[in-house]
Amino acid sequence: MTNQTQIGLMSHEELLSEHERQTASYAQLKTEKLTLDLTRGKPSPEQLDLSAALLALPGDGDFRDGNGTDTRNYGGLTGLPELRAIFGELLGIPVENLLAGNNASLEIMHDNVVFALLHGTPDSPRPWSQEEKVKFLCPAPGYDRHFGITETYGIEMIPVPMRPDGPDVGVIAELVANDPQIKGLWAVPNYSNPTGAVYSEEVTRALASMPAAAPDFRLFWDNAYAVHPLVGETAPSLDILGMAAEAGHPNRPLVFASTSKITFAGAGVSFFGSSTANLAWYQKFLGKKSIGPDKLNQLRHLRFFGDADGVRAHMEKHREILAPKFALVLKILEDRLGASKVASWTEPKGGYFISLDVVEGTAKRVIALAKDAGIALTAAGSAFPYGIDPEDKNIRLAPSFPSMEDLDKSMNGVATCVLLAATESRLDLPKS
Amino acid sequence: MTNQTQIGLMSHEELLSEHERQTASYAQLKTEKLTLDLTRGKPSPEQLDLSAALLALPGDGDFRDGNGTDTRNYGGLTGLPELRAIFGELLGIPVENLLAGNNASLEIMHDNVVFALLHGTPDSPRPWSQEEKVKFLCPAPGYDRHFGITETYGIEMIPVPMRPDGPDVGVIAELVANDPQIKGLWAVPNYSNPTGAVYSEEVTRALASMPAAAPDFRLFWDNAYAVHPLVGETAPSLDILGMAAEAGHPNRPLVFASTSKITFAGAGVSFFGSSTANLAWYQKFLGKKSIGPDKLNQLRHLRFFGDADGVRAHMEKHREILAPKFALVLKILEDRLGASKVASWTEPKGGYFISLDVVEGTAKRVIALAKDAGIALTAAGSAFPYGIDPEDKNIRLAPSFPSMEDLDKSMNGVATCVLLAATESRLDLPKS
Repeated sequence: MTNQTQIGLMSHEELLSEHERQTASYAQLKTEKLTLDLTRGKPSPEQLDLSAALLALPGDGDFRDGNGTDTRNYGGLTGLPELRAIFGELLGIPVENLLAGNNASLEIMHDNVVFALLHGTPDSPRPWSQEEKVKFLCPAPGYDRHFGITETYGIEMIPVPMRPDGPDVGVIAELVANDPQIKGLWAVPNYSNPTGAVYSEEVTRALASMPAAAPDFRLFWDNAYAVHPLVGETAPSLDILGMAAEAGHPNRPLVFASTSKITFAGAGVSFFGSSTANLAWYQKFLGKKSIGPDKLNQLRHLRFFGDADGVRAHMEKHREILAPKFALVLKILEDRLGASKVASWTEPKGGYFISLDVVEGTAKRVIALAKDAGIALTAAGSAFPYGIDPEDKNIRLAPSFPSMEDLDKSMNGVATCVLLAATESRLDLPKS
Repeated sequence: MTNQTQIGLMSHEELLSEHERQTASYAQLKTEKLTLDLTRGKPSPEQLDLSAALLALPGDGDFRDGNGTDTRNYGGLTGLPELRAIFGELLGIPVENLLAGNNASLEIMHDNVVFALLHGTPDSPRPWSQEEKVKFLCPAPGYDRHFGITETYGIEMIPVPMRPDGPDVGVIAELVANDPQIKGLWAVPNYSNPTGAVYSEEVTRALASMPAAAPDFRLFWDNAYAVHPLVGETAPSLDILGMAAEAGHPNRPLVFASTSKITFAGAGVSFFGSSTANLAWYQKFLGKKSIGPDKLNQLRHLRFFGDADGVRAHMEKHREILAPKFALVLKILEDRLGASKVASWTEPKGGYFISLDVVEGTAKRVIALAKDAGIALTAAGSAFPYGIDPEDKNIRLAPSFPSMEDLDKSMNGVATCVLLAATESRLDLPKS
């Protein structure tokens, strides 16, 4: 758009005048009195409308699954077999190794941590709460709610660098082989939150097969975006359970998924896939807190999808809504920040986020500037363990919820904030 | 029916011939090859049909609550205000002190225990898991799933006798005042499981106000049958939160309820009422495992009930189905066992159970005899901590699920087993 120059190559004079320009742009931005929100990966109302039929399902007189189970009544800890079969096909997990739960896979992750803390896993010498220290590896940037679970229970979090093909397995293998206190690793294998990285087969196999000092080391494998591509082709869900079993670590992976970003974010169905031993262990304790999940909501979903192709066709409609939003954000980033070289960003092929890296030391400032201009961005550092981004440069962008018009306004606003913060930083100005 | 005599007053000859009669009856019973189940307090299909309208609710285009919240999306940890207001009225709890959750109040009880173990309550000097020992008082007979939660986490359970007006507060007050390791008490205040006892105002006030050695002593107040009378008048839900606050123990009560036995047992809504401090504490940790409950199912329930009177009218329909079943069970007990004085039982005015006491030392035998005749009864001792009924005499009867015809057959079968076991016991016969 404007005639841009790399800010890093500007003379002091040029920088001063660029700073003046951006200060003026920012003053203009504030006059617009925006109230826009790019914080969370929430589906838009338009996406939720795609599942409108669920509002009246299963419908009058329909409450039995294919086995004749009355889904209205108590019971059935494992969830409906027919719905598990559909998602087993999509996730590459045998139906007998996949449970269906309530509306939050986060809860299943949480409960796996809690049961391990209070009971120990099937492979644990003792409950984790009786260990002197428990540590988790946290590929970063990563998902703040994962880190929230480990932080709340005092589990030490060790950041591990993320690459375009997954986390750095060299670093991970070294740590896991030597430190028996490392009990877990958080992972989002497909279209990772927030970088969009897809774990390669090599990375996946290394994580499944590497030696671990802890006999009860676990991969918390959150396949939240398994069927959520932004391009024509969906990255395959690799057979992490099979790979781990083959390598002699059948109980290592705990696989999570949900329909939160397929049907209704707050009223979907969650899934948990793992080895027979892990599922028996989990259900033993799950059965103390519940007589069974909401099977009627599972039946509702079964009727809505019909089969795995029904899910795939449905996700194509999501893609038609989401892909233009991501394209718009990427276009604005390129147009406004491309030539000035003050930022870099990911170009995800799926998932819900774009990860934006601004000039080191300016992410907090950008977010504060945006906030003052009425644009809410995810808190600085939130994609890192303990909320600490050591370089203060990462910003997670969530393009799904706003309308195209709001997205256009807010991303142009963000670009102005990034440029202003960059010139401030180069000039070493006090942040007015 | 038959010309009965008190078995305890029979001569040896009379006992032998009574034993012969009952042996013959039992042989006859076995030829019927029954497959009947009196184990769990499950609503019958006919009861579930009362909520048939839920199957198509909220209906096309209806997904916003009265505040305009889109119930399909993420968020809203507290649950829908309008539904909380309805159950606040029914439970006698201010709406701001009542949360609405997913389909299982058992889960909220479980999580309160887990959060107390791993974090400590707002009044705890340290997390319960760091105490040398944690103990709970367990009025017995009581609810097996309560005891299941405390047992799974290694909490020592101390049985306390149940009376018709609630647990023995003399025993409880003495224990709680002197033992700082006692952190909780399980309670079902209205139509208690399994005796049907309704806690009197005196008992309730004593529990709310008694001094406790542990600053973080908690009443786990499971008001599961608040609106579930079997007679015309419903026992009031006493203001346990107000009584405790008045006595200087505002954080003592944790109140639980659900629609499991109002709408669909597996697809209802749960509730949690407590002090502002306790709710803030609970939500702080709840927010780590969930972004919010299934608000759409809460909206579905809101539409179905309309208001608190809608719930009351709905419960009247349940009563019309349940009351004849309880009457039938009581009639058979009286007809078959009344004169022989080998058993006593409760005559509940609400709830889901009848508690039957047989001749000491014969409950296990009765249950085994019934099982061999195709009648499933709740496992012996299941209403007691650790599954141990010290007198081996209590049997929990759940009349709700079977049809009237099945109930008739199974209760007559049970009566035969009770009489046979009683004569065996008096004759000191080996259990053939």
